[in-house]
Amino acid sequence: MATHRFHPTQYFNVIGTADPCLRVASGDTVIADTIDASGLDAREMAVGSRPNPMTGPFFVEGAEPGDTLAVHINRLTPSRTTGWTYSPLASTVLDPAVLADRPPQQRHVWEIDREAGTVRLQEPAKGLETFSPSLQPMIGCFGVAPAGGQALSTATSAPNGGNMDYRLFAPGTTAWFPVSVPGALFYLGDGHACQGDGEIVGTGIETSFEMEVTLRVLKRTIAWPRGETSDDVFTIGNARPLDQALQHATTEMLRWLGEDYGLDARAASHLMGQVVRYDVGNVFNPAYTVACRIPKRFLTQVRGEAGPLPPGASR
Amino acid sequence: MATHRFHPTQYFNVIGTADPCLRVASGDTVIADTIDASGLDAREMAVGSRPNPMTGPFFVEGAEPGDTLAVHINRLTPSRTTGWTYSPLASTVLDPAVLADRPPQQRHVWEIDREAGTVRLQEPAKGLETFSPSLQPMIGCFGVAPAGGQALSTATSAPNGGNMDYRLFAPGTTAWFPVSVPGALFYLGDGHACQGDGEIVGTGIETSFEMEVTLRVLKRTIAWPRGETSDDVFTIGNARPLDQALQHATTEMLRWLGEDYGLDARAASHLMGQVVRYDVGNVFNPAYTVACRIPKRFLTQVRGEAGPLPPGASR
Amino acid sequence: MATHRFHPTQYFNVIGTADPCLRVASGDTVIADTIDASGLDAREMAVGSRPNPMTGPFFVEGAEPGDTLAVHINRLTPSRTTGWTYSPLASTVLDPAVLADRPPQQRHVWEIDREAGTVRLQEPAKGLETFSPSLQPMIGCFGVAPAGGQALSTATSAPNGGNMDYRLFAPGTTAWFPVSVPGALFYLGDGHACQGDGEIVGTGIETSFEMEVTLRVLKRTIAWPRGETSDDVFTIGNARPLDQALQHATTEMLRWLGEDYGLDARAASHLMGQVVRYDVGNVFNPAYTVACRIPKRFLTQVRGEAGPLPPGASR
Amino acid sequence: MATHRFHPTQYFNVIGTADPCLRVASGDTVIADTIDASGLDAREMAVGSRPNPMTGPFFVEGAEPGDTLAVHINRLTPSRTTGWTYSPLASTVLDPAVLADRPPQQRHVWEIDREAGTVRLQEPAKGLETFSPSLQPMIGCFGVAPAGGQALSTATSAPNGGNMDYRLFAPGTTAWFPVSVPGALFYLGDGHACQGDGEIVGTGIETSFEMEVTLRVLKRTIAWPRGETSDDVFTIGNARPLDQALQHATTEMLRWLGEDYGLDARAASHLMGQVVRYDVGNVFNPAYTVACRIPKRFLTQVRGEAGPLPPGASR
Repeated sequence: MATHRFHPTQYFNVIGTADPCLRVASGDTVIADTIDASGLDAREMAVGSRPNPMTGPFFVEGAEPGDTLAVHINRLTPSRTTGWTYSPLASTVLDPAVLADRPPQQRHVWEIDREAGTVRLQEPAKGLETFSPSLQPMIGCFGVAPAGGQALSTATSAPNGGNMDYRLFAPGTTAWFPVSVPGALFYLGDGHACQGDGEIVGTGIETSFEMEVTLRVLKRTIAWPRGETSDDVFTIGNARPLDQALQHATTEMLRWLGEDYGLDARAASHLMGQVVRYDVGNVFNPAYTVACRIPKRFLTQVRGEAGPLPPGASR
Repeated sequence: MATHRFHPTQYFNVIGTADPCLRVASGDTVIADTIDASGLDAREMAVGSRPNPMTGPFFVEGAEPGDTLAVHINRLTPSRTTGWTYSPLASTVLDPAVLADRPPQQRHVWEIDREAGTVRLQEPAKGLETFSPSLQPMIGCFGVAPAGGQALSTATSAPNGGNMDYRLFAPGTTAWFPVSVPGALFYLGDGHACQGDGEIVGTGIETSFEMEVTLRVLKRTIAWPRGETSDDVFTIGNARPLDQALQHATTEMLRWLGEDYGLDARAASHLMGQVVRYDVGNVFNPAYTVACRIPKRFLTQVRGEAGPLPPGASR
Repeated sequence: MATHRFHPTQYFNVIGTADPCLRVASGDTVIADTIDASGLDAREMAVGSRPNPMTGPFFVEGAEPGDTLAVHINRLTPSRTTGWTYSPLASTVLDPAVLADRPPQQRHVWEIDREAGTVRLQEPAKGLETFSPSLQPMIGCFGVAPAGGQALSTATSAPNGGNMDYRLFAPGTTAWFPVSVPGALFYLGDGHACQGDGEIVGTGIETSFEMEVTLRVLKRTIAWPRGETSDDVFTIGNARPLDQALQHATTEMLRWLGEDYGLDARAASHLMGQVVRYDVGNVFNPAYTVACRIPKRFLTQVRGEAGPLPPGASR
Repeated sequence: MATHRFHPTQYFNVIGTADPCLRVASGDTVIADTIDASGLDAREMAVGSRPNPMTGPFFVEGAEPGDTLAVHINRLTPSRTTGWTYSPLASTVLDPAVLADRPPQQRHVWEIDREAGTVRLQEPAKGLETFSPSLQPMIGCFGVAPAGGQALSTATSAPNGGNMDYRLFAPGTTAWFPVSVPGALFYLGDGHACQGDGEIVGTGIETSFEMEVTLRVLKRTIAWPRGETSDDVFTIGNARPLDQALQHATTEMLRWLGEDYGLDARAASHLMGQVVRYDVGNVFNPAYTVACRIPKRFLTQVRGEAGPLPPGASR
């Protein structure tokens, strides 16, 4: 249960099978610096390059193909006081007919106020003078090495995770990834100080972070990333179009309800049909991300007195 | 500001230009019976036929093409104590590769307990013995006559509304529809006692209702349905794939923020980029439905001291 | 086997259940004037309006719901010497990222030389001075009344046909449509003097025509339009995205090979897997169109000595 | 202008940056053995593994990022007398509603008769006793190393090529690929003895080949694969859904017509609008493939007396 403090000196633009930056035991905690999507670190020095330079990979001892890596997100602390976004809305989220009227892309700086727990445009646009949403740190891109010797761009995502840009990958959440190589080879980075659904300007508020995660190997098999927050469990699908991402996420939830909650396809459909929520992680990257989410209070009903099964646990 | 109590004797399976069942003034309230998606009324008598038999159309005096019809949902009261759903999950939400394993479609009865405010399977599947989500009435299908003499099946949806199956079309919500014919010709029906996102079993809990709505004509133009709840404003896009529905909804929200909140494309993208939420109405019907939603508290920030502009109002 | 010469005085922008313009017997031939997509007739007088004003509907005696209407296209004769197109390429066929650079839409006149059998831009763009493709008349929009009282815009298409914009709906082709109302109620119009795949400028070369078709009722049931040329048989799917249109067309071909050629799902897959061709009718309208096409010479092999079964015939 | 005879001893399931198997000069010819999609060689020995084991990579001297690699396909000779396919039709090409009725997947052997120039099922299904389409060899999967250190599964495709399964990648065709790494690193394999559009049974007739290609470096930049046959030029887009693949291909053709034929966006749209053909390479793999094709005879018209510019050449 050691805690490792890691300061990277190189960054990766693909998630693949590279030499580990560190070997950790299952259950260990890693505190690591991450740089922003364009490669700027805590001092705004350009130490990496686009897209989404990753910190890692961390070799988790005992992880074998077919296992699951649990990543508990303990803490995401912005390591500088500014982040940046793009404007205007991405071409993927607007009717093609209006794209000719879209202003050119610009970069904007946001101030991150950790004390107040808010973010704010450095030079607010007209009408946004008082606009100041909450600081809501999240991980944009993280995951494990994919199968078969692939090395996938950190611009996109796949069953192994990657650039999912889902706002519930936030402190307190546990994420699970399907392991395809010995040691899992875990990468993380691309932190956002805030982001709405869909990453519809093509960025969150991009900044550098100190991220603290606890890594644990589970001897069970999953097909797509899964997660648990204090309130919900969710599964992730990454694909285009959104329909296919939603199909992957829904199919994975159906499997989960069968494996851990004893619900057959019919029973699971009763539960999901009435309480499921779909979230759009991103609708910007080469693969889009959809989460299929279920409030845990309904799973308590399902388990009766025994209470909900810890998601990701084997029974 | 009259209140009209309407008991239909015929129902419609297309939303088009039919003879009005009733003429009402702008501002009037209508209390109308609706029957379930398969045509069963409050006594479970088959008085209509699939798909989604509609009550209406209501002619709203003063409504002209180019106007907007505001529909405030005052109350949705189930008019019987049972509803029904299908199982298993729809073929549209699962990976094609697993569809061969899907059990055949069945119909299931749910008990609706208005006192307790819950619904419950009459014959619970194994593991769902205590599963009892809240009664959360919503309108599955409603809207106004489309443009150009079209008559659109109540199985689908379009800019004029229709079978959107979005759970926030619920009591307390105001919905706006773009008017294309004199009198707007408003239809409603297909009430659900409960439904998760996506209508992923192909139904909500389908039942008959007494629905109470207040209809008001606004002299302004919108392109797609919009809505307002106590907490949020939202816009609706109806299309396949989900990507296109999302584009329609997002484009309509961009227009709204420009028209009513004075935000240009760049400012609107700052706001939406950080706080937007996407909801999936249905991912089952011929046209899918996506809502682009923004919490109203952020619009208060946008308007500063003046407070939020009542959505749907002209300035 | 009468021949009817019909000069319309009104045109329709929806395909639905309207009063017939003419009643004909099964086997009769209709020679009818059609006007162009914007409503211009042979004298370039504006006698109809957008979108795609239709001539019809023709009531074919004996046609009942569940039957099939065979439409043999005998002749498509342009009735004036000019047609028009739009430029540039439609927003649906270009990468969203390049749409900002797209020039504004313009209308262009083409000269139709029936003697030479060619078409030519009246004011050729630079580099196109000698560009003169063949005159290849086709029907952009035709079909029969849809089911359930629907009235569908002639901008789009559905199982009943409509605005498919497929270049093989040309002289010599027989098209089949599924009948949903008594008399079938057949409409036609939107003739093109020429068009590539996909109708990617949003138009073919739009002009008025004298169209001659022979209408015949078949006592068999199909689900989607089918067709036969001198060389090929094909099935049509209309939907978005293209993937779904392709699924509809492929599924209909699988049914056809089973019904008329005795091929089970496995045998049909052997044939289709090696020889199928996919054509894109349009990738511009609300519903896209994909054709699944098979050269008839392979069906001869399938039938052995008996030779190919006339597609559309019942056995 | 040397000719190299290469017998591989290892095969690759990703297209990435591996050590070259051979270094060749620009203009050299390579004759190489390829094995089938499941790893069987000319003697039906299993010497590689799924998916689509590749021969290569060939380092072409002088190729630098930003260049184009021209691959002329001189000859594709099956190196054994049998190939195999799957049945039935893939789940991606059928309506989801009919997938429950799909028979389970089976493998089938085809006899390849090089003398007769035909293929034939070893155990013909009922009705296919005389079905014997032409032997039409093609390359299913080939391309060059992608950018940024990616290693992409040979199950899929991308701007660098890969598993496109397009039947016009056949003898006589020249294909062009955008170079992203020094030496280009060219891979090839996955030969098919025959295949219809779409690879709709999930395979062509998979067999081992002796493939002969001539590799040439061009000092020009392209974004997506391009090709030229005796009759046509074409561009390729790889993505899901088909709509996006079609957008990539069309956008690349628009660029090509501008660069090499001097057509601006408006002129190019006139040409493409009337004569373009779309082909579906595959509608089965993770990324689908669409070709945008133009008969060269029209480009002759465009160039006037000067005749068509050799595609892929710089001017």
